[in-house]
Amino acid sequence: MDDKQRFTWQCPAPQQQSKISMAHGGGGKLMHDLIHNAFIPAWDNPILQQNSDSAALGVGKTKLAFTTDSYVVQPLFFPGGDIGSLAVNGTVNDLAVRGARPLYLSVAMILEEGLEVETLFQIVESMRKAANDANVQIVTGDTKVVDKGSGDGIFVNTSGIGIIENDLDVAPKSICDKDVIIVSGDVGRHGIAIMAVREGLRFESTIVSDCAAFANVTQQLLEASIEIHCMRDLTRGGLATALIEIAQAANKGIHITETSVPVDEGVRGACEILGLDPLYTANEGRFVCIVPQKDAQHTLQILQQYNERACVIGEVEEDGCGLQISSCLGVKRIARMLSGTQLPRIC
Amino acid sequence: MDDKQRFTWQCPAPQQQSKISMAHGGGGKLMHDLIHNAFIPAWDNPILQQNSDSAALGVGKTKLAFTTDSYVVQPLFFPGGDIGSLAVNGTVNDLAVRGARPLYLSVAMILEEGLEVETLFQIVESMRKAANDANVQIVTGDTKVVDKGSGDGIFVNTSGIGIIENDLDVAPKSICDKDVIIVSGDVGRHGIAIMAVREGLRFESTIVSDCAAFANVTQQLLEASIEIHCMRDLTRGGLATALIEIAQAANKGIHITETSVPVDEGVRGACEILGLDPLYTANEGRFVCIVPQKDAQHTLQILQQYNERACVIGEVEEDGCGLQISSCLGVKRIARMLSGTQLPRIC
Repeated sequence: MDDKQRFTWQCPAPQQQSKISMAHGGGGKLMHDLIHNAFIPAWDNPILQQNSDSAALGVGKTKLAFTTDSYVVQPLFFPGGDIGSLAVNGTVNDLAVRGARPLYLSVAMILEEGLEVETLFQIVESMRKAANDANVQIVTGDTKVVDKGSGDGIFVNTSGIGIIENDLDVAPKSICDKDVIIVSGDVGRHGIAIMAVREGLRFESTIVSDCAAFANVTQQLLEASIEIHCMRDLTRGGLATALIEIAQAANKGIHITETSVPVDEGVRGACEILGLDPLYTANEGRFVCIVPQKDAQHTLQILQQYNERACVIGEVEEDGCGLQISSCLGVKRIARMLSGTQLPRIC
Repeated sequence: MDDKQRFTWQCPAPQQQSKISMAHGGGGKLMHDLIHNAFIPAWDNPILQQNSDSAALGVGKTKLAFTTDSYVVQPLFFPGGDIGSLAVNGTVNDLAVRGARPLYLSVAMILEEGLEVETLFQIVESMRKAANDANVQIVTGDTKVVDKGSGDGIFVNTSGIGIIENDLDVAPKSICDKDVIIVSGDVGRHGIAIMAVREGLRFESTIVSDCAAFANVTQQLLEASIEIHCMRDLTRGGLATALIEIAQAANKGIHITETSVPVDEGVRGACEILGLDPLYTANEGRFVCIVPQKDAQHTLQILQQYNERACVIGEVEEDGCGLQISSCLGVKRIARMLSGTQLPRIC
């Protein structure tokens, strides 16, 4: 393929947005369009087309998962975590949902001139604990400093390598009709925890982020020989966005029942006050797992060992494409991707 | 090892700097101290202790190199490259100097709200070309947006995976007495090219950055069965800093002759005007290669196919630790690491 053939994307037409807005980073439709109109066509290759947060690669005789994420969360510290634990857990989870055992992380920091060294040390220590808990090693790194006013305290990038030790292809394209959709716990905690600190909101009890690595859980599913078809961590766009992405990538329909989705009472109350939908609110320690009916019960048993609120929320439909949600009144609606995000800089 | 034993680092004493300064990102002594006092002790493991820009890893039956770098260069575009080509070439080169064949890159972007989409597309296209030229695939990515005033247009992180297909351990600890030090071309171009644009300086002829991937060159050295002991790309701190780092990590002496180091006349003139030392000026497409005497001639032949200014500049000494430079008058001096950098945000 020569250069010209390969390079098929074009600068957006004038009527499209000419400047980057916050919504381009929100995990919603604008970001999706940017990735699919700019990055994927330009850098096109079969691995990038896998449409997953982690790439599955053959290197020599070994099958690897490889992923990257930059973390720009504000504030840096929040109930249940900080930018350091988030950066380790987020990347570990991206490897885990590809069916890989996470092994190694890189850490690259962009520090703003004037950052307190004490703050940096707290974050470094938090990363140490998180890496220890997730049983991964930080093996390489990079440090850059930008002048005051050109950054925001600290940005952390982590990239990760995991080994895929099974013959599954844990990806949207593997889902089948009548597969069961299971969520690993209650949703919406991370978004509300960040929002509460940022806006100075106080609720009856502090809402703590779900920020955690769940690779031990996915590893147990794999070791139990569950035929996992797809997993996805629920991050920026929440449960709904993750399911829409899976449905679109698989060209299948997914149907869930709203009342079956577990939401903590405090999170639900906060969402009502703030006018947010918990189905679109960010998480950092939850995932959906899509398995054939024969494995649903066993999957649930394992997930409930870690979180008793893990439950079945829906299934893959024989026809349709996209996500349909049945409300408590039994009315079905088609769920759309938000154009941006409920909350910027959530991770 | 329990948590307490492992976690041996401490917050710096009050007399030390309490805030991050630009010098902490300059590739000099302050950055070196930050890495060795904060990051390495906290995240301690044998791979991190390898003291190399790339980690060499065993994954399954495969030997990999893994590396990361964030790029914050200003201006985004400069003669000979831009932040996109730099981000691809820099990470490819970090893999190459570990004796690996670069294969896959991740790309994570932190965009500032208000960035021109056209600028982003130019950078994306530049990355496509650079990846194509270096024969690597971009396989996974991430996009974040920060609010206006919390970033600086665009920061790019690339992480890379390469495969190590030889039995060499290309690292400082492999260097031996009387090994020959060879530089792959003239030094100091990148630093001066950036400085000229940033400061609006005009020289008789435009000084063009050396920004380029050199994995094809290192690959040819490996295929020729050269017994490479160590390679290092010359980046932020220039040739001198790279050699000091190698000497310190190897606990050996390195001796070079200043007059043997090739420097372009324009670069030398600019350095004189600006009061800079070309030995400490940044490069983005040059490396040093340390080989046993028996392989020096063959190495040189190969390097000169790509750059006729590649030459021998010194050797590893039987005793001593650190870098010694003989001046044109024959006077030997001990070279020190700069505390920060000549120029901030050079890469």
